[in-house]
Order: sequence, then structure tokens, then C-alpha cells
Amino acid sequence: MIREDFLTDEFFMKQALQEAQKAFDKDEVPVGAVIVANQTVIARAHNLTETLNDVTAHAEMQVITAAANHLGSKYLNDCTMYVTLEPCPMCAGAIFWAQLGKLVFGASDPKRGYELLPAELLHPRTQVYRGILNHQAESLLKEFFKRKR
Amino acid sequence: MIREDFLTDEFFMKQALQEAQKAFDKDEVPVGAVIVANQTVIARAHNLTETLNDVTAHAEMQVITAAANHLGSKYLNDCTMYVTLEPCPMCAGAIFWAQLGKLVFGASDPKRGYELLPAELLHPRTQVYRGILNHQAESLLKEFFKRKR
Repeated sequence: MIREDFLTDEFFMKQALQEAQKAFDKDEVPVGAVIVANQTVIARAHNLTETLNDVTAHAEMQVITAAANHLGSKYLNDCTMYVTLEPCPMCAGAIFWAQLGKLVFGASDPKRGYELLPAELLHPRTQVYRGILNHQAESLLKEFFKRKR
Repeated sequence: MIREDFLTDEFFMKQALQEAQKAFDKDEVPVGAVIVANQTVIARAHNLTETLNDVTAHAEMQVITAAANHLGSKYLNDCTMYVTLEPCPMCAGAIFWAQLGKLVFGASDPKRGYELLPAELLHPRTQVYRGILNHQAESLLKEFFKRKR
């Protein structure tokens, strides 16, 4: 059987969803992210704010740090970040500083998504794609918050 | 001689300026921060983006992580952050998540300060004070960028 989604945005977003599932399994808000360079995942992370007791430990922040470590470069111009949920302003600010080439996110965040703000937080050169496998990301988040109630 | 500035905003901002000087001495953009709880410095940090090769290693991000570690709490409602330069949107976003009680900054950042954005990035309960020892912070930044030219 031919893997039709091989090396597509959906393929890499599935990797981010696997990270989100790891967060879910740790009772963390389930958000996951990977960073891809040259069609290869070079960094992966999931939300660890509860485990690390640290509001800055969002998936995006960690994956940026990990990718920069991997590349030996602070700047991620030739990289794509796949993240299951729309970044918050903090993470959008980090994505700006990293000069990320391409951002692909799944579900929109109607409460704290960076696109809610009447301001451009990302670098003008960062391409943005939305809604990739958003239903899977939303299902995981809904299940998490249902259990919390 | 009576130390008139003992435990005032100026006293703690001087501690943040000492951190900024450490950054300067490492050839980092000189920004420093401390977090104070119950009139005591519980965390201190300076910008390390070059040393760590990590755009997220701003003084504010590190000092939030360190203060949360110290307190065993993600939230910094009863804390004050003193930072020598106005935070960027990334750091303002982190300050939001930490629900910081009070933010005191020195110099304004006319390029990437969070107050330039037409949006409220901080938590509504965070009190903000500006311009404390701003000239010292500005002098250090100007000297740094003069050397870079």
C-alpha cells in the first residue's frame, strides 16, 4: 500500500499529534509539536507545564530550543514547525525571534490563540497554514478538559 | 550613612542592572532581571541567547522559570519582576501565564517592546511601573550596540 501522506503536512502533523498524546498521558494539556528541516523531524516536544511546574514549558518553546540545539543555530528560517494547537502570544513571540520559515497548526485556540490579537506577532516571512488535522487535535483537547470537569 | 533606597524599586532594579552587566560582560545584549517575593530576591537571570544559542533565553523567561522552581508554584501572583528593559511580546506572554503581581521595567524598547502592540498582552491584574533607573539600562544598551558597530 502506498503511503499517500508520506512527508506531507499531514504526515508531520501526525507526529505532532503523537507528542500531544504523550502530554495527555501525563495529565498535561495535550499539545504537541515537531520541527522539520529537509523533510526530517529534527526536534519534538509536548507541553510539560505541570510536570516542570513552569508556565514557559509549552511544546513550542521546548521544540524551538531543541531544534536550535540540533542545528547549532538560533534561527530556524529553513524549518517548519507543526503544532497541534494555535500558538499563544508567548510562543508566537518565540517563533518571531526564531524567524521560523513555516508554521503549520491544527486546531485554532479561541481563548489564547495569537491570531485573536489585533497585532502581527509573527515574522513577516513566516508562512502560516491552519487547520491541518484540526479535528484530531480538538478531540484530544476536548477529552482532556471533559475529564478535568 | 542611611541607605535611602533600601528595599525600594530602585534597590531591586540595581540588582537587575547587575545582571545586565553580567550579560554585557559575556557579549550578550545587556538585559537583566530579578524576581522578588516578600522583599527578597528569589531569582536572578540575564540574557543568554548567544551563549545558549537559543532565542527563548531572554532574562525574563529564565527568571520566571527560576522563581517558579524556587517557590514550587507556576504562578507568581505575589511576586515582582524587575527587568532593565521593557519585555518583548514573548516575555509579556510568559508574564501573562505566570500571573505576575507586579512588573517594573527600566528602559522602554522602541523596537520590540510589548507596549508597542495595540493589544493587551499582560494579565489584567499585573501592575506595571516604567522608567525605574532607565538611564542606566539605556547607557549599557547603547554602549553594547556602539561596540557592535
